[in-house]
Amino acid sequence: MVSLSDLQVRSLGACTVDSPLALYVEGRTTNEYYVGETDRILYDDTLELIASRGVPLAELPTFESGGPRQKIFFDPATTKVGVVTCGGLCPGLNDVIRAIVLELNTHYGVRDVVGFQHGYAGLIESNGHDVVELTPDFVSRISERGGTILGSSRGAQDPSAIVDRLVELDIDILMVIGGDGSMRGAHNIGAEIAARGLSIGVVGVPKTIDNDIPHIGQSFGFSTAFAKAAESIKAARVEVEAAVGGVGIVKVMGRHAGFIACYAALANHDADFVLIPEVGFSLDGDNGLLALLERRVAERGSAVIVLAEGAGQDLIPASDRRDASGNAVLGDIAGFLREQISKDFANRNQPLTMRYFNPGYAIRSVPADASDSVYCARLAQTAVHAAMAGRTDMVVGRRRHRFVHVPIPFVTSGSHSVSPDGDLWLSVLESTAQPFSMC
Amino acid sequence: MVSLSDLQVRSLGACTVDSPLALYVEGRTTNEYYVGETDRILYDDTLELIASRGVPLAELPTFESGGPRQKIFFDPATTKVGVVTCGGLCPGLNDVIRAIVLELNTHYGVRDVVGFQHGYAGLIESNGHDVVELTPDFVSRISERGGTILGSSRGAQDPSAIVDRLVELDIDILMVIGGDGSMRGAHNIGAEIAARGLSIGVVGVPKTIDNDIPHIGQSFGFSTAFAKAAESIKAARVEVEAAVGGVGIVKVMGRHAGFIACYAALANHDADFVLIPEVGFSLDGDNGLLALLERRVAERGSAVIVLAEGAGQDLIPASDRRDASGNAVLGDIAGFLREQISKDFANRNQPLTMRYFNPGYAIRSVPADASDSVYCARLAQTAVHAAMAGRTDMVVGRRRHRFVHVPIPFVTSGSHSVSPDGDLWLSVLESTAQPFSMC
Amino acid sequence: MVSLSDLQVRSLGACTVDSPLALYVEGRTTNEYYVGETDRILYDDTLELIASRGVPLAELPTFESGGPRQKIFFDPATTKVGVVTCGGLCPGLNDVIRAIVLELNTHYGVRDVVGFQHGYAGLIESNGHDVVELTPDFVSRISERGGTILGSSRGAQDPSAIVDRLVELDIDILMVIGGDGSMRGAHNIGAEIAARGLSIGVVGVPKTIDNDIPHIGQSFGFSTAFAKAAESIKAARVEVEAAVGGVGIVKVMGRHAGFIACYAALANHDADFVLIPEVGFSLDGDNGLLALLERRVAERGSAVIVLAEGAGQDLIPASDRRDASGNAVLGDIAGFLREQISKDFANRNQPLTMRYFNPGYAIRSVPADASDSVYCARLAQTAVHAAMAGRTDMVVGRRRHRFVHVPIPFVTSGSHSVSPDGDLWLSVLESTAQPFSMC
Amino acid sequence: MVSLSDLQVRSLGACTVDSPLALYVEGRTTNEYYVGETDRILYDDTLELIASRGVPLAELPTFESGGPRQKIFFDPATTKVGVVTCGGLCPGLNDVIRAIVLELNTHYGVRDVVGFQHGYAGLIESNGHDVVELTPDFVSRISERGGTILGSSRGAQDPSAIVDRLVELDIDILMVIGGDGSMRGAHNIGAEIAARGLSIGVVGVPKTIDNDIPHIGQSFGFSTAFAKAAESIKAARVEVEAAVGGVGIVKVMGRHAGFIACYAALANHDADFVLIPEVGFSLDGDNGLLALLERRVAERGSAVIVLAEGAGQDLIPASDRRDASGNAVLGDIAGFLREQISKDFANRNQPLTMRYFNPGYAIRSVPADASDSVYCARLAQTAVHAAMAGRTDMVVGRRRHRFVHVPIPFVTSGSHSVSPDGDLWLSVLESTAQPFSMC
Repeated sequence: MVSLSDLQVRSLGACTVDSPLALYVEGRTTNEYYVGETDRILYDDTLELIASRGVPLAELPTFESGGPRQKIFFDPATTKVGVVTCGGLCPGLNDVIRAIVLELNTHYGVRDVVGFQHGYAGLIESNGHDVVELTPDFVSRISERGGTILGSSRGAQDPSAIVDRLVELDIDILMVIGGDGSMRGAHNIGAEIAARGLSIGVVGVPKTIDNDIPHIGQSFGFSTAFAKAAESIKAARVEVEAAVGGVGIVKVMGRHAGFIACYAALANHDADFVLIPEVGFSLDGDNGLLALLERRVAERGSAVIVLAEGAGQDLIPASDRRDASGNAVLGDIAGFLREQISKDFANRNQPLTMRYFNPGYAIRSVPADASDSVYCARLAQTAVHAAMAGRTDMVVGRRRHRFVHVPIPFVTSGSHSVSPDGDLWLSVLESTAQPFSMC
Repeated sequence: MVSLSDLQVRSLGACTVDSPLALYVEGRTTNEYYVGETDRILYDDTLELIASRGVPLAELPTFESGGPRQKIFFDPATTKVGVVTCGGLCPGLNDVIRAIVLELNTHYGVRDVVGFQHGYAGLIESNGHDVVELTPDFVSRISERGGTILGSSRGAQDPSAIVDRLVELDIDILMVIGGDGSMRGAHNIGAEIAARGLSIGVVGVPKTIDNDIPHIGQSFGFSTAFAKAAESIKAARVEVEAAVGGVGIVKVMGRHAGFIACYAALANHDADFVLIPEVGFSLDGDNGLLALLERRVAERGSAVIVLAEGAGQDLIPASDRRDASGNAVLGDIAGFLREQISKDFANRNQPLTMRYFNPGYAIRSVPADASDSVYCARLAQTAVHAAMAGRTDMVVGRRRHRFVHVPIPFVTSGSHSVSPDGDLWLSVLESTAQPFSMC
Repeated sequence: MVSLSDLQVRSLGACTVDSPLALYVEGRTTNEYYVGETDRILYDDTLELIASRGVPLAELPTFESGGPRQKIFFDPATTKVGVVTCGGLCPGLNDVIRAIVLELNTHYGVRDVVGFQHGYAGLIESNGHDVVELTPDFVSRISERGGTILGSSRGAQDPSAIVDRLVELDIDILMVIGGDGSMRGAHNIGAEIAARGLSIGVVGVPKTIDNDIPHIGQSFGFSTAFAKAAESIKAARVEVEAAVGGVGIVKVMGRHAGFIACYAALANHDADFVLIPEVGFSLDGDNGLLALLERRVAERGSAVIVLAEGAGQDLIPASDRRDASGNAVLGDIAGFLREQISKDFANRNQPLTMRYFNPGYAIRSVPADASDSVYCARLAQTAVHAAMAGRTDMVVGRRRHRFVHVPIPFVTSGSHSVSPDGDLWLSVLESTAQPFSMC
Repeated sequence: MVSLSDLQVRSLGACTVDSPLALYVEGRTTNEYYVGETDRILYDDTLELIASRGVPLAELPTFESGGPRQKIFFDPATTKVGVVTCGGLCPGLNDVIRAIVLELNTHYGVRDVVGFQHGYAGLIESNGHDVVELTPDFVSRISERGGTILGSSRGAQDPSAIVDRLVELDIDILMVIGGDGSMRGAHNIGAEIAARGLSIGVVGVPKTIDNDIPHIGQSFGFSTAFAKAAESIKAARVEVEAAVGGVGIVKVMGRHAGFIACYAALANHDADFVLIPEVGFSLDGDNGLLALLERRVAERGSAVIVLAEGAGQDLIPASDRRDASGNAVLGDIAGFLREQISKDFANRNQPLTMRYFNPGYAIRSVPADASDSVYCARLAQTAVHAAMAGRTDMVVGRRRHRFVHVPIPFVTSGSHSVSPDGDLWLSVLESTAQPFSMC
């Protein structure tokens, strides 16, 4: 477990090169845009929290501020950058790739940017994936389409073989867009680079469709994803309202964190129950799901259940299968609920029209919406600034509206989830009018 | 089987009431808007077809023209109309309801319009469903939402009990929006009315998400539905292009007719194979799906299969289950294909990333798009004109851009499907570059 | 003025080459897909119309059927095709370009397809526009974006210089996507080709955002365009309903034909008045627009006027300016109405909140919706079949759901407009409840 | 000018009533959801800022935390709440109304909620606007439509007459959703209430389409609005790319703050120049807009200018007209630029195709997108919690992801705008590659 006192980001060395941004308009200093080397963003935001630290102001935990530096580490004229996307799709991947390429070209004058295909697998030479030249023209329109033009894959690869490949290709900076597994991979690559005494930067842009990255605010693509998921909830409501005894179940992504379920439910008010991994529930008993569902259908004529895929795993037998990233395959809670609800309605001799919606991958393969598109562009710009300034073994993020640098171990230890005692979950309870406890 | 010589629509009696449309603007005749009593639309549209009939012009099969009549059968001041929606949801149901109510009120001055809830079940008094008063205010915004504000249900009900209820409520006209089963029901209600010598009109607006109604052109909601289905095909393409050995399967509605699959595939060009009930295919052999898929993935890196739910039923064991409407439950062709493809790729030791999309009900619960919305409004207006003119036991439709009246038996005998030799299927083959024969 | 007896399409010569479609799958004949050389589609569709012709069946006016022919004129191995887009933008241009290229490549094996940039100007060598090679890869995703990748321009160019260029580049077929002016240009090019005794085909795909092409049904892109225009009507309704004395004016395209205004108004039922070029109206008098507007605002609290840009031109001074295509610049009817309405409300001492919406080019620069996308693909496929079969000086169209060949003079003489006595305008009157006469 | 030491929110009195939330589930305490009375959110977020205050931790400026309190001021059983929406439309107004009504009903059991129509004008009895009963059923679907079901109006009304009306109707809490003028009005109402010694709470939800409210983060509806504005920028790009010498001007809202222009430009990367009120620019000179535009069109073939309506006002004569809210009517910078650019291209004998887009009200009359919808719901819930706890003369906001209470004077003094030295503007410069200075 990392501690807040480790918030210092690692650098490859001293920044001695003038940023070309300074030359952008002759005769005008652009100093005001530069981030000061001592700018630090507070980790805490309430009086109570900082008071509880019991340390002087200067020792409060802080993040390094993101943004352009006046002095940078890499000489743009000779810098070569590689970009890779790893793990599952997420809206905005192409926006991030695009903004990295444009920022490097337009503002730093870095012309040599390449893409590795199909995740870390593309960094293993023996896999034979071509390296793609990423020019401003090539990336100009890619954000109009979902997915990633670089392709992706799951699973770790040998850091040593990856560093061999980086060295062979003269890569100075590796930009990794990926999830927590990929960031652990990036950390290992950074360690291997350090062990070899090389000056290759590794900078990450964290990706997660589940919004479960700790410390650094909403993840890119999340706004787009839950908006898409909300469409299925609306469809479910329309279906069950037209039916007699209509019960809709909408399964959305969320292995360990119920953010998609919560936000999608809040977005359109059509949910009656939201079930997430963070909050347990029972089927039986007066306050169990079946009894509550029965009452809701009696009162409103129909009900919609929004179900995060990782919810209620204690109610079904554990699976011991694992996917290519090593994640445990979840039990089929949707199938279990459909069966239990059908039985219950049959036992009670009540009509039931069950409608099941599983938007699945459809919420992650769409292009980013306008908000996410802006966010991706700004995250990528921050990542490029960090990388050019020689930062390494780190990711960028936006914590409470400030772009910050975070050491990789901070985002790969622990995870972010919906607090059952927090204001988001309270908002969900207020919106659905489901009880505080369903046990 | 009905014959084309039966295209005469039944009327309740002579039209003797002046249409209030005529009074709409004092001092101006509106005669030009009226449909002449002898206007007939040709059934055939090619020289070859009409030549092959071998009858004089006047005996060619024709439909009665839809539209307002100068003389109508029902006196608007005392007419009461009931509306019912039956069967599965379809985009545009609320548009049709809305336009019926507005047309009756605004143009005919009929104020007494009621809705029956949950399909024909709502016409059986003992079921206890309330009758809903349908006012212009009430329906004003309903088309912004999918589904049907009246609710729906599947299955037939006793025609005699239904006519009892119509009589009890003083209904003069029953407008039925529903599928082929519902139209058979409407025909039976019309027969029962005739048997009792009553003057109650029964006019249908045919609904089918599958676009499989014979004789009367594209069904309302179809444009919206296939556009929605096309989104899943695009999502599938995005997913499989990012993966190694990506194969996407998109299952769409289409029990006996592959129209949704064909149009959705044509709409975005992202499909490699379209499998529909009308065209058989083999899995094995040099020209079978597996071999073709193998080649396509080798060439393009990925492939997307668009699958109508009723395709390939000969490849899997028949089910003997039936749903509430009496339709046979289809075998799980998608599951079968997923299994076979997985085995095949494993046998050939090829990487496979399978992505399955099932938009399901999501394509039918959305509001109508602009084109369907216009179409629904005009169909409903035509239906009201027909009903006020005393037509009964009929449906409205648009055949080759003309609104026409069609006796119910014409649309309930036989069905419309994709012709394997026709230009639509040819367009699909041209767009996907799949072979003419996959056997 | 052309007559219906001239419906025969011109051919470059006898079709002697076997269509490569026949070879598509060995061992299977594909004869059933071929259009017979004698297939003809009736021009008329009602008994009354064909009866009124007073000619034998075989002499009724008919169109040649579109579709693939078993024997074609051009040898695919040596055929070179040029594509040009002319005039204003329209949704679907890229879909048409894309389908032309794919159809030529995939089905005919024609590899040599080029695009001319910026309309006919790109066919004049001295303008220096590059010729673009159009490959399947290049066009693969272009339909996801509005506009035309080839660029466009207005105005005629010298047919002789154009034919010089076609000859110089060895073009066998010129595909022209453009409006009526462009089709007149195409006809002149065809005449010049004929005069020189060359075998170059000129085949058009007619484009008009206003849906005003005669004889050949709804134009591509129209569904997309009016759906977009309908959004502005909805926005106007939202604005004026929130205001005190709210009056919204939505100006939409439609110089001589009010189709966009009519369909957009029908699509969302939010319009109170639709003003189109085809139907005159007065401002003053008891049945004039001002009095009607006054009453509508009094009754409903607000009103929305949908205004085709060419409506009410008799009410304002004529302009004698002309645009680059030679079209008269229209008078500013929207400005005039805003002024008159403001004065009128001020005179009557009534509060007025005027909201003006002009979606302008926004309705024509969006990508095609799913329906238009399918339509564009099929039109383009039909155009390619016609061109390969040696047809020239013609356009393709879909008349009452049949794809047909039409000689260019038919679509450039006269124009299509909303009939004040027809069922579309009646539907509009029924939907808006505006009076039959506003004079 | 208010000072940060005034961040204490006013209360009507001591909170002595148990929150009914506590009773929600018997046998389970819900304490963890309650906000502690001493929870305070730091105003500053960087080490540098808090260090520069030079005060002990406990004296740092802080906001009161939003959220439910265990003890509240008003007894739900007897509380009556009024809701009013003022000023221009903004996406999400109906979401806020809806969530206020649902939160009051579902969680506090307050059944008596009414809406005043057409802004403060509806609170003046003599205007004769009906008071609307706001029930959960009535508001259930209102957020599917843009605008405000309560209507709105601009301009102040006499606070004394408003308080008379509140007293007459027994209103305990007035919820005001409106802009800065409306919040000044709310403050005056609060002052009048205090002067009379009444216990009526006045709680605001700040609204601004321009995102220019100081201190409290992004305003609701902004995400939806700039996404809509971005569509026009894309349309402009499509238009000008197809044209010869294409120059697009897209005018968007933004009287004093260029946020919409900046975010919309960042969202789709199609802008070449962004002109905002906060950053001056010249037309002439080597680094002026005309020269830069000339170069951009030469390089890229076309250019798109995104123009906030308040930009470049120093370049045109000032207007002395004022609108109903007392805001100065802006000069027509778009018209001026169009003229100047046309002249300049004509002088240089360069072809120019000018395309002007003015999405206008269309960006504010759409329904809220999913993100805004969630945000509106949570803001409204926070406002209800504050109001029930007796807070008054305050607004709710989300500052750096925390919901906070802010005294009204804080949000009506000064305003929020794009900092020419900040990271947002830098991102815009990076994205458009326009120079740091255009003077």
